[in-house]
Amino acid sequence: MRSIPVRPVVAPVTAAERSDAARNRERLLLAARELIEQGGAAALTMDRLAEQAGVGKGTVFRRFGSRAGLMLTLLNDSEAAFQARFLFGPPPLGPGAPPLDRLIAFGAGRIAYVVEFGDLVLAAGNASRGRFEVPAAALWDRHVEMLLREAGAESPEPWLMAGSLNSTLDPERLLHLIREHGVTCERLAASWRELVTRVVTGADGTR
Amino acid sequence: MRSIPVRPVVAPVTAAERSDAARNRERLLLAARELIEQGGAAALTMDRLAEQAGVGKGTVFRRFGSRAGLMLTLLNDSEAAFQARFLFGPPPLGPGAPPLDRLIAFGAGRIAYVVEFGDLVLAAGNASRGRFEVPAAALWDRHVEMLLREAGAESPEPWLMAGSLNSTLDPERLLHLIREHGVTCERLAASWRELVTRVVTGADGTR
Repeated sequence: MRSIPVRPVVAPVTAAERSDAARNRERLLLAARELIEQGGAAALTMDRLAEQAGVGKGTVFRRFGSRAGLMLTLLNDSEAAFQARFLFGPPPLGPGAPPLDRLIAFGAGRIAYVVEFGDLVLAAGNASRGRFEVPAAALWDRHVEMLLREAGAESPEPWLMAGSLNSTLDPERLLHLIREHGVTCERLAASWRELVTRVVTGADGTR
Repeated sequence: MRSIPVRPVVAPVTAAERSDAARNRERLLLAARELIEQGGAAALTMDRLAEQAGVGKGTVFRRFGSRAGLMLTLLNDSEAAFQARFLFGPPPLGPGAPPLDRLIAFGAGRIAYVVEFGDLVLAAGNASRGRFEVPAAALWDRHVEMLLREAGAESPEPWLMAGSLNSTLDPERLLHLIREHGVTCERLAASWRELVTRVVTGADGTR
């Protein structure tokens, strides 16, 4: 499967990559996820990662270039996994479920993703070329556009409608609601479900 | 009328402000708007403003503190004018029109506002405490929430639904669509109209 990366990968894994290097990379990424689980993105430093993975600090820097590079690699991996789930995975997120159910599952999946990778998503967004020119974001828009069409919500501007719906899942906004207003994931997912259900079942006002 | 400022005002106008100072302020703000109309927010510098208004540079700095303070003052003035229009102005933006028409007019008004004050809005947003804790944003949410309720779109979480709809009007997003993708205001306003019409006429999925 080819996935669309969140951002350009700093150190792409090529076919020529030696298998011990690949194992090394997996061990480092696993250690990085453990550090984040324990103490959030702030706990993820190059020093601690080297210690956690039992490798030299030089190895960590050669592999990821910088802390930002490490975070982008982590996000690319997790974004690729999310893409695989909505493109090829089991229903209701993947193919096989009614389009409205897939739309509902897509939002719930994005919300869960933002909760899991919150600070990482914000840090990567601030370090990169902006929130809107992310290749993965274009894929999300196309996915939502396709599901709206399959659900019979023929829009005069399906791309704009898909972008509007996806903008409600903006990571910064979701994290603000969760952290500053104590809104739970469940409430966010229920509000997304209500929004897309209304959009799919409502009239577009032109007919 | 009391309006809710976009951001804390740097140099508030108090009742004790002398009338010649008030006139000075109005003259400076008028000159600032003229500069923006001629050359965008980039054209608005403290030097040029002093020249345009025919006052000394010291006067400009005493009044606004900094270029950022000047921009916040300008935005507060224009936001207050927009608030007056949707709270007390003529229909369809103001009271007297059906709630869905008012919702449609509200989005069109926000889009026009972002187009008029684009760079100023972005500059003020970046210089302040974030996009979500703006007092004016809380008023927009309450306004949209009220109109949704009046339109009969009873939501289990009306505040979250209003916030989601308003998030589609995020200035950074709108300006990105306009500048990078050549989307016109008319298309943005039509897509907002479609979105709120679908939301108001659609089923919430719980009944």
